[in-house]
Amino acid sequence: MLYRDIFELKTSSDSIYDITNNVKAVLKASKIKEGTCSIFLSATTAGMMINENNRMLFEDFRNTFNAVAPEKKFYQHPENAFSHIKSSMLSQHLTIPVSNSELILGTWQSILLWEFDTKERERKIIVTINY
Amino acid sequence: MLYRDIFELKTSSDSIYDITNNVKAVLKASKIKEGTCSIFLSATTAGMMINENNRMLFEDFRNTFNAVAPEKKFYQHPENAFSHIKSSMLSQHLTIPVSNSELILGTWQSILLWEFDTKERERKIIVTINY
Amino acid sequence: MLYRDIFELKTSSDSIYDITNNVKAVLKASKIKEGTCSIFLSATTAGMMINENNRMLFEDFRNTFNAVAPEKKFYQHPENAFSHIKSSMLSQHLTIPVSNSELILGTWQSILLWEFDTKERERKIIVTINY
Repeated sequence: MLYRDIFELKTSSDSIYDITNNVKAVLKASKIKEGTCSIFLSATTAGMMINENNRMLFEDFRNTFNAVAPEKKFYQHPENAFSHIKSSMLSQHLTIPVSNSELILGTWQSILLWEFDTKERERKIIVTINY
Repeated sequence: MLYRDIFELKTSSDSIYDITNNVKAVLKASKIKEGTCSIFLSATTAGMMINENNRMLFEDFRNTFNAVAPEKKFYQHPENAFSHIKSSMLSQHLTIPVSNSELILGTWQSILLWEFDTKERERKIIVTINY
Repeated sequence: MLYRDIFELKTSSDSIYDITNNVKAVLKASKIKEGTCSIFLSATTAGMMINENNRMLFEDFRNTFNAVAPEKKFYQHPENAFSHIKSSMLSQHLTIPVSNSELILGTWQSILLWEFDTKERERKIIVTINY
């Protein structure tokens, strides 16, 4: 059995969003106590990761992503090849356990969405809770 | 409850395959309307990603993978250490939501399998639909 | 329906653990024959991957991780920014199919946990089997 909901997020270029509370709101509405929560991002130029919500750390991540896939470099694919490559360094799907009606997340774990594209986007995040 | 099927794919060294239609065929045969679709690749020298099926972009990805794990470099593990490292840069499992009997994929999202090994392989992809 | 169990692991700094048998033990206790097994690591400075358990290969991985996120470099986030970045290069969640009461793993696939933090940690791994 499953419960499904979708939420949308307006994003700016090269920005980071903590979507933990958005996912928690879906879980709360579902009233499910025990299960697994799958989060899917329908994007090829954005990604998700589970890590610490910390502005200084975000700068370190950004520098690392830019070193692997620099914006100023020749790519075969015009416009935003680096956005695609950075998105592949993160994930388009996460699965998090649910217990006692809560996501089982560690103390420092947040669900982070990175917009890597070169312009504003409207992203869809599909949340499915299997129980 | 779940539905399971396995398909096989003959791969060539350093090649990319769009397996979206293979996964869609499993889903169609299952007749499941709402669920989650888990795709598992039983390999340590190949990986999967959800991104755009675009030949120019594939060249950009290939250059990035080769910069991180170059073939011509000394490795402790003989033969294909770089294949293992590239496989860890992608994923061996994906989970995609299913709604109205379709995979919920974004406009540009394809399910891509990268063979990173140094010779032909026969890969098994295990598809499980939880509903 | 689902089965859940949690196991703990004492880790040392910059060390690798093969947790395949720990996960298999949970599966055996569950007596589930067909399903999917989700493994979740509640950490932001450790990660998991499915790859070959091979000491020489581990050295090659370590060198690659250190090239992308070197320990001796200036980071905005004090202390262990490189541990967070390496953890994002691997995964905090894996989903593996279960058939005939066994994990469907390829010949060379092991479930590996990498501790990237700078000191000893006690890690929690949450195993959920959906069936």
